[in-house]
Amino acid sequence: MIIVTGLVKVRADALDRALEISLEHVHRSRTEPGCLVHSVHQDVEDPLTLFFFEQWEDDGALTAHFAVPESLAFVTLLSELTAAPPVMTLYEATPKG
Amino acid sequence: MIIVTGLVKVRADALDRALEISLEHVHRSRTEPGCLVHSVHQDVEDPLTLFFFEQWEDDGALTAHFAVPESLAFVTLLSELTAAPPVMTLYEATPKG
Repeated sequence: MIIVTGLVKVRADALDRALEISLEHVHRSRTEPGCLVHSVHQDVEDPLTLFFFEQWEDDGALTAHFAVPESLAFVTLLSELTAAPPVMTLYEATPKG
Repeated sequence: MIIVTGLVKVRADALDRALEISLEHVHRSRTEPGCLVHSVHQDVEDPLTLFFFEQWEDDGALTAHFAVPESLAFVTLLSELTAAPPVMTLYEATPKG
């Protein structure tokens, strides 16, 4: 499976809007084929830092997710609300034990 | 590397204490050998759900972490503050791209 993490530092004046569109993105993404987990969190050390955690069945599912027009629109909109460029990391992952 | 996730639903009356001891655990764990990432977050959909995300260099580092007396004490104390048993998941993970 693929694990995706996203770290986004949003501006204080844009937090409410960032949370709103992030939840829309999470809820929509969960309905897509191959989406196992999709969630968004606020860092306890800094509530302006949002942490996305996603699990996808395989590369194909993730590629299709990236190509969804609403995904692109979300990334564009979120980028306008941030204090620094978002950081996304992908991992090939296998559950242990 | 090893990715560890932890999902913990805490009781509303215990949230402040749970956040306090979780941050202590995060900060202590970051100083341990082989700890690459250790963080704790609140789910935007449910702030009583805490999400831990950790990265460790290898099994040895994680095994040593589990054996630290303060780690065991943290798990025991946190378990007394939860509404349901915590769920921890381990992954063997390789960064992509």
